[in-house]
Amino acid sequence: MNNLFQLKKIITFCGALACLSAFACVKAARAETATSPVTSENSPLVLAKRGSFFIGGEKAKQNFIELGSQRAADTVTINQMYVEFMQPVGKTKLPVVMVHGAGLSGNSYDTTPDGRMGWYEYFVRNAYPTYVVDQVGRARSGFNQAIFNGVGAKEADPSQQPKITRMGDLHAAWINFRIGPSQGVAYKDSQFPIEAIDELSRMGIPDLSASLTSPNPNYQTLSMLADKLDGIILMGHSQSGHFPLETALLNSEKVKAMILLEPGTCLNDQLSDAQLKKLTSIPLLVVYGDHLSSSTELPGNALGWQQRFEGCQTLIKRINTLGGHAQMLYPPSLGILGNSHMLMLDKNNLQIADLIMDWINKNTNQ
Amino acid sequence: MNNLFQLKKIITFCGALACLSAFACVKAARAETATSPVTSENSPLVLAKRGSFFIGGEKAKQNFIELGSQRAADTVTINQMYVEFMQPVGKTKLPVVMVHGAGLSGNSYDTTPDGRMGWYEYFVRNAYPTYVVDQVGRARSGFNQAIFNGVGAKEADPSQQPKITRMGDLHAAWINFRIGPSQGVAYKDSQFPIEAIDELSRMGIPDLSASLTSPNPNYQTLSMLADKLDGIILMGHSQSGHFPLETALLNSEKVKAMILLEPGTCLNDQLSDAQLKKLTSIPLLVVYGDHLSSSTELPGNALGWQQRFEGCQTLIKRINTLGGHAQMLYPPSLGILGNSHMLMLDKNNLQIADLIMDWINKNTNQ
Repeated sequence: MNNLFQLKKIITFCGALACLSAFACVKAARAETATSPVTSENSPLVLAKRGSFFIGGEKAKQNFIELGSQRAADTVTINQMYVEFMQPVGKTKLPVVMVHGAGLSGNSYDTTPDGRMGWYEYFVRNAYPTYVVDQVGRARSGFNQAIFNGVGAKEADPSQQPKITRMGDLHAAWINFRIGPSQGVAYKDSQFPIEAIDELSRMGIPDLSASLTSPNPNYQTLSMLADKLDGIILMGHSQSGHFPLETALLNSEKVKAMILLEPGTCLNDQLSDAQLKKLTSIPLLVVYGDHLSSSTELPGNALGWQQRFEGCQTLIKRINTLGGHAQMLYPPSLGILGNSHMLMLDKNNLQIADLIMDWINKNTNQ
Repeated sequence: MNNLFQLKKIITFCGALACLSAFACVKAARAETATSPVTSENSPLVLAKRGSFFIGGEKAKQNFIELGSQRAADTVTINQMYVEFMQPVGKTKLPVVMVHGAGLSGNSYDTTPDGRMGWYEYFVRNAYPTYVVDQVGRARSGFNQAIFNGVGAKEADPSQQPKITRMGDLHAAWINFRIGPSQGVAYKDSQFPIEAIDELSRMGIPDLSASLTSPNPNYQTLSMLADKLDGIILMGHSQSGHFPLETALLNSEKVKAMILLEPGTCLNDQLSDAQLKKLTSIPLLVVYGDHLSSSTELPGNALGWQQRFEGCQTLIKRINTLGGHAQMLYPPSLGILGNSHMLMLDKNNLQIADLIMDWINKNTNQ
C-alpha cells in the first residue's frame, strides 16, 4: 500500500504529460502551447529549428580596384538576401516573413530598444515559423561596393556614386517616426519607450537603396523566398511597406497574405485595376499608428503621413470594389492611442501584434 | 492488480522526469542536457532567453550632405556594435563571444553553407550563453557613411574615401581559405562542404574596416561587452583573430579566456613582454586548420599562413615562459586532416568545437 501511495503521488506529479527524454518533454510542452500560447518572454522558448541562409543573388565579375585593391580580379555575389528564422515545435501556422524599413536592418523586429520581446520571437511563440530578412543592399545582405571603389580610385566620376542615406536622430526618427513634435518633446500618449531612444539611434545604419538596380531586386528575391517556403504571409514596414504588393504581383500564388505596416506608399497612384485584380484573392492589411498629422521632415511636396494613410484607404476601397479582401487597422479608432511609426518597438507592441494575428486567423486558412 | 500494472507502466514511461507544464518540461529537459548535451540539431532547442542589443557607439553631428541629402543636419550614432545572443536554460557556463573575420558578418557562426548547425547554436546546446557580434563598421553594426556622401557631392577628394574590400570567390575564398589550390580543384581531404561553395560566396559582404578610426573601436567595444556580461570567453577569427589579445590588454579582468581562430596575426612582433605579462592569467588557445602552405593570394611580402602559424607558436612560447597558459590546437597533429580557414563551417565543425570546449573546460573555472 505504501508503494501504491507513492506511485499515485508520482502519477499526480506527472499529470497528463509524460517525458522520457528532452525531446518528449518538448513535445509535451508544445502540446500545451498549441492551446495556450506561451506569450511571456520569461518562459523558455522551444524551437524545432532555427538558423540562417541566403536567397537569390547573382555572380558579378569585378576588377582589382572594384574589389578594394587587395587581391586579383574575381567574381563575387551581389543582390543576395540574408534570412534568419525560428520555427516553433508542434503544429505550425503559415510562415511569416518580416521586412524592415529604411536605414534599419532586420533587427527592427527583434528585442525592443528597452529590452522587451520583439515581434520576431512573439510570432514564433504563437506558432508562426518566422523569417526576418535584411533587405538586399543592407546589413548582412551586403551591397555592391564596386562603384564606390571606382570613384575612390578616380576611375569613375563622383556624381555616379549613389547617395547613402542615414536616419538622423531628430528629423528622421523623433519627428518623422511620430514620437514627438520637436526635440525633447514627446507626445503625451506616446507608446514609444522614450527612455531607450539612444538604442533606436544605434539601430540606424547606412541605407544603400539608391545603389540598387531597377526594378528593386528585393521583390524578385522575396518571391523566391515565398516559393522556397511554399507560401508566406509577407510583412513590410515603411520603406518596404509596399514590398508585399510588388512581390504578390510577381507571385500571387505563394504570397498568402500581405501586411503593410506604416507604408511610405500603397502604390495607389501606380497600380492599375488590372494589376489590383491579381491581388483580390490575397488578404491585405494596412496598419498605421497615431499622430498622422506629424511631419515626415522630407523636403518639397513629399506626401505626409496623413496623405499616405489616405492613399492606402483609397487602395483598400479599390481592391474591395474589385472583389478583394483589404482592411485598414488604425488603432486610434479602437481607442489605442499614441503608437509611433515603429509599432513593433512600441510599449504596446504585443497588443498590436495580437490585433494583426487576429486578422491573420480570420483571413487565412491556417 | 490491473491498476497497479498500469500505474507501473505510466511511471516507467515518465521515467525520472516529470512535467506539469511547459516550463516544468523545459526544466526537466535541461536537467538531462546538463549531464548529456543535446548535440543534435534535430532535437528541439530550449532557450531561457534570446534576442539582440547594441553596445558602444558615440553620437556624431552630420550635415545634410553627409546624411545623404534627404533631411536636415542631425546627429547619428557611429561605432556601435550589434550583438545577438541565445541563453540556454538551466545552469550555464561562461558566456562566449564570437567575432567574425574580414568580408563576412556574424552569420559566419550560424548555419553552415550546406545547412548544418553552426557553432552559435552548438555552444548554446552545450550550456554556453553565446553572443555573436557584427564587427563595428560591418553589417548590422553599420558604418560611418559621411565621407562617402562628401565625396559623392564633390565636397571631399575621392582619395579620402576608404577602400571597401570584398571577398572574391577564387582568390580570397577558395585559395586563401585553403579549400583548394586552384579554381575548381579542392584538396582531396578538404573538410569544406564544397557542394555549397556558392552559399559561402553569398555570405561575403563589403568590409569597411579601412573606414574605422585608430585604435580599432572594436577592442574598446568588446571590452564594454565583457564588462556588461561580467566575464567572457572571447573568440576571434582571421581578421579579428587577434581581437581577443587587444581586448584582454584593455580588460584583463573580464576576459576570462582568449580563443584565436586562424588569426591573421598573433601580434608576436608587436607585443612587449610587459604587455604579455598582463595576459598570463588568461588562458589562450590558438587554432589553425590544415594546408598551411597555401597562398594567401595577398601581394608583396604579406605573411603566408605558415608564417602566421609560426608567429603564433612563438607568441605561445613567450607567454608560457612568462608564466602564462597558452596552447596551439593544430588538428592535423591529432590526425584530423583537411580543415579549411573556415573551421566553423567545415563538415567536421562540431568535432573542432568539441576540441575547443574540452580546452575551455580544462582551462577555465566553470
